[in-house]
Amino acid sequence: MDAEAGIAQAPSPPYTAVIFTSVRTPGDNGYAATAAAMNDLARQQPGFLGVESARDGIEITVSYWVDDQAAQAWKYVAQHVLVQRKGRQVWYEDYRVRVATVERDYGLRESSFE
Amino acid sequence: MDAEAGIAQAPSPPYTAVIFTSVRTPGDNGYAATAAAMNDLARQQPGFLGVESARDGIEITVSYWVDDQAAQAWKYVAQHVLVQRKGRQVWYEDYRVRVATVERDYGLRESSFE
Repeated sequence: MDAEAGIAQAPSPPYTAVIFTSVRTPGDNGYAATAAAMNDLARQQPGFLGVESARDGIEITVSYWVDDQAAQAWKYVAQHVLVQRKGRQVWYEDYRVRVATVERDYGLRESSFE
Repeated sequence: MDAEAGIAQAPSPPYTAVIFTSVRTPGDNGYAATAAAMNDLARQQPGFLGVESARDGIEITVSYWVDDQAAQAWKYVAQHVLVQRKGRQVWYEDYRVRVATVERDYGLRESSFE
């Protein structure tokens, strides 16, 4: 978890969530440095809202975007395309990407019942 | 991560994802045992597709359901309601729940470009 990490703050739904769940290959192989750089690059993209990440056996990273178009655009940013290729070849044993529309959300202090 | 954990297998979209991101209070306070029991109970619910979880500073748990109605029904299962209350009072410093419709997904061996 990087220093800025925590629960992402996003505006009211709808917005887009990209759920990236992965199983890594053994060893770092330059992953940590690249992941930090990609994190910084993502934050500069138009429509970026936030990101949450945890690793514990599997790694789950959820990035949030104003809409599907903004999420797609990030997928095709040149530097990110190269990193995705390296991910498939070196870093990941397996992964799944799920693109979803967040329709409602609530937190500890605004629970939806009781 | 429990023994059955990994990347959840789900049918083709659309389906529902419930993204639960939390920051825990210090100590276990009975959390681990209850979480395991809730995990088992969730797996028995109608419309349950799978769950992914990782903890590393923050905890991210994503559960997958056939539709929004199945996800909602789990929220209101009596035993789960009691656990949610204890979560708000004891286990969680903060959390956010986001209910989302997964519209497309792809994996390592079926990448959507190149």
